Amino acid sequence: MATVKLLTDAEVDAIPAAKEVFDDIRATRKSDFVNNFWRGLANDPALLKRTWEGLKAVMTVEGALDPLTREMIYIAVSTANGCSYCVHSHTAAARARGMTDAQHAELQAVIGLAGQTNHLVTAMQIPVDEAFLR
Amino acid sequence: MATVKLLTDAEVDAIPAAKEVFDDIRATRKSDFVNNFWRGLANDPALLKRTWEGLKAVMTVEGALDPLTREMIYIAVSTANGCSYCVHSHTAAARARGMTDAQHAELQAVIGLAGQTNHLVTAMQIPVDEAFLR
Amino acid sequence: MATVKLLTDAEVDAIPAAKEVFDDIRATRKSDFVNNFWRGLANDPALLKRTWEGLKAVMTVEGALDPLTREMIYIAVSTANGCSYCVHSHTAAARARGMTDAQHAELQAVIGLAGQTNHLVTAMQIPVDEAFLR
Amino acid sequence: MATVKLLTDAEVDAIPAAKEVFDDIRATRKSDFVNNFWRGLANDPALLKRTWEGLKAVMTVEGALDPLTREMIYIAVSTANGCSYCVHSHTAAARARGMTDAQHAELQAVIGLAGQTNHLVTAMQIPVDEAFLR
Amino acid sequence: MATVKLLTDAEVDAIPAAKEVFDDIRATRKSDFVNNFWRGLANDPALLKRTWEGLKAVMTVEGALDPLTREMIYIAVSTANGCSYCVHSHTAAARARGMTDAQHAELQAVIGLAGQTNHLVTAMQIPVDEAFLR
Amino acid sequence: MATVKLLTDAEVDAIPAAKEVFDDIRATRKSDFVNNFWRGLANDPALLKRTWEGLKAVMTVEGALDPLTREMIYIAVSTANGCSYCVHSHTAAARARGMTDAQHAELQAVIGLAGQTNHLVTAMQIPVDEAFLR
Repeated sequence: MATVKLLTDAEVDAIPAAKEVFDDIRATRKSDFVNNFWRGLANDPALLKRTWEGLKAVMTVEGALDPLTREMIYIAVSTANGCSYCVHSHTAAARARGMTDAQHAELQAVIGLAGQTNHLVTAMQIPVDEAFLR
Repeated sequence: MATVKLLTDAEVDAIPAAKEVFDDIRATRKSDFVNNFWRGLANDPALLKRTWEGLKAVMTVEGALDPLTREMIYIAVSTANGCSYCVHSHTAAARARGMTDAQHAELQAVIGLAGQTNHLVTAMQIPVDEAFLR
Repeated sequence: MATVKLLTDAEVDAIPAAKEVFDDIRATRKSDFVNNFWRGLANDPALLKRTWEGLKAVMTVEGALDPLTREMIYIAVSTANGCSYCVHSHTAAARARGMTDAQHAELQAVIGLAGQTNHLVTAMQIPVDEAFLR
Repeated sequence: MATVKLLTDAEVDAIPAAKEVFDDIRATRKSDFVNNFWRGLANDPALLKRTWEGLKAVMTVEGALDPLTREMIYIAVSTANGCSYCVHSHTAAARARGMTDAQHAELQAVIGLAGQTNHLVTAMQIPVDEAFLR
Repeated sequence: MATVKLLTDAEVDAIPAAKEVFDDIRATRKSDFVNNFWRGLANDPALLKRTWEGLKAVMTVEGALDPLTREMIYIAVSTANGCSYCVHSHTAAARARGMTDAQHAELQAVIGLAGQTNHLVTAMQIPVDEAFLR
Repeated sequence: MATVKLLTDAEVDAIPAAKEVFDDIRATRKSDFVNNFWRGLANDPALLKRTWEGLKAVMTVEGALDPLTREMIYIAVSTANGCSYCVHSHTAAARARGMTDAQHAELQAVIGLAGQTNHLVTAMQIPVDEAFLR
């Protein structure tokens, strides 16, 4: 259960500023499904709008990284931050963008390895090599 | 300053099990440079060997993800874990694998966005949508 | 399910040192309800007592910050640490101290923003400005 | 040393989209000083602009929480995330908004307490009380 | 629900490279029970094998630390990382290795205290004493 | 540089409530050296006293875990939390309590392994086995 109300479509429809964002989410994603994250944010239409605008700008436009790579980076951060919802939603998004089982397994392997060496580095308090400070 | 001694080449040369790993690092990377992380691990040749074998298997072999993508995922995890050394060393590795300024900027944008939505999701305690539990 | 037993009132009553703390929790909070956190700690009456004394000293006395502000800071830390129970319990506490929906939304906005810029700063490894080191 | 170039005023001036944001930062804050965070972001004017717009909307406008409270929440998140730069910069910002030594000490006390109980809750895996799921 | 399939014994049996690891897990632990973690990893037999070999080398061999101490250290890291599954599985492992209620309580007390002082240190940005840099 | 003043002995001597704690730290540790952490906390004598009393109760008394084990658990939590100062100070404390190089190496190996499997578990969102919920 959330700490805020998850607004239903009817409730969102009653808030013009929220409805406008939901319409854009649906149009951008070409899908009627709007997941719970946005239904929680809809309690504050300004926060909803800013968050969606930011996500749209970073994740959906043409860019230097392909959309699947961006989703895998998102999963990596969400995993390290221990955000269960985010791991679930972005794994679904990555699969929708074509992530194969082999890519998923390799993503996990890198995430696990980074988790291990991050901890080793911190336990040893390794100073940054001069060579890395260009 | 580290919590362990960072072994010099001379000190590593005196430990056959560590020297063997350093030789493989140099051969695999085609470079004489061995960074501080491995010099710290060299205090425990078994841990050094296991860690290097794991990293070699995940990061240097042909796989489902290209090497640059793997380095960017590594940076993402290291950033979320707040490992300064790791961010430095893997940003250097990503650049060595051809990461452009535009890709680096986009990587940062995704990492920042994920950090933001991870926190929003946790503050709201959003339950996972049925649709994400395939 | 917890990794320790959550003691019932009857079980707590049988441990004088734990009962004494529960009595003080109830008296201080002017409520008969004692939440699961304390029921877990009751397995170790000394840890229970120290933890409660610490919390009472920080959260319930007259201080330089008003009680609601303290609860919102608590939520902020708990969110960044990904402690689901803590987010739930301190959001309830903040509401009990009068947190409005508008304040809750703003709290979330700040938490999300901080999460974003924390990640950006770490990805870029920004050095502290001289001006901040007074 | 950062993983990106920290742009000087002269370099920012040569990028109109970045200069526009720097001008707004200076106007909004009524100060000529622009800290390193923005100089790193200036490498990607679009990311710079989005981040500044987000921060301006959350931290500088009239809202349900007073500006000092928002800065203290920012410090709380930054501390839990272990972002040294962010702790420094937002502690400076909080002082500039009038944070007293007594308030700073109390903020630390709450942050420390939350860190402690977050860890205890997670170690015990305490289930959320029904009462907290309104 | 996991983001990967948790393989049943029948499914693992059909993958020789995975079955070999499961056989070794069962032989090493002298138990037929194989927990979900390995069933998730079994989707990638190479990752399964590397992870098990690493865990076997660190956790099951004769070493400088007794097995119970190693499990308690594992619980400490897992708690700080907020990994619910890991706290559960390694608390079970620690109990199987003889952890008493008194030891468990003391482990929690140390974890909680460290969580508290870690946060206080970060909030105050305490510089490392010369004396600690031997 | 800290965000608070690190009080010198002369400054602490001028605050009776802080001096009393410093005297107890010196007496308990049988050493004249008081590290920076306490000098930062001394700005708030009540927080200083509570923190020291908590640490003394958990780390210095006879208990179910030997003092070295407690210090290694402290290092484990501090590493996972990325607290550089804490890793340094508690590694020094562990060495003072007799931690050998072999024990230190094994501690690091467990910390690294836990970091790895914590991340793998979270990426896969492994559900807790019934067997672990006694």
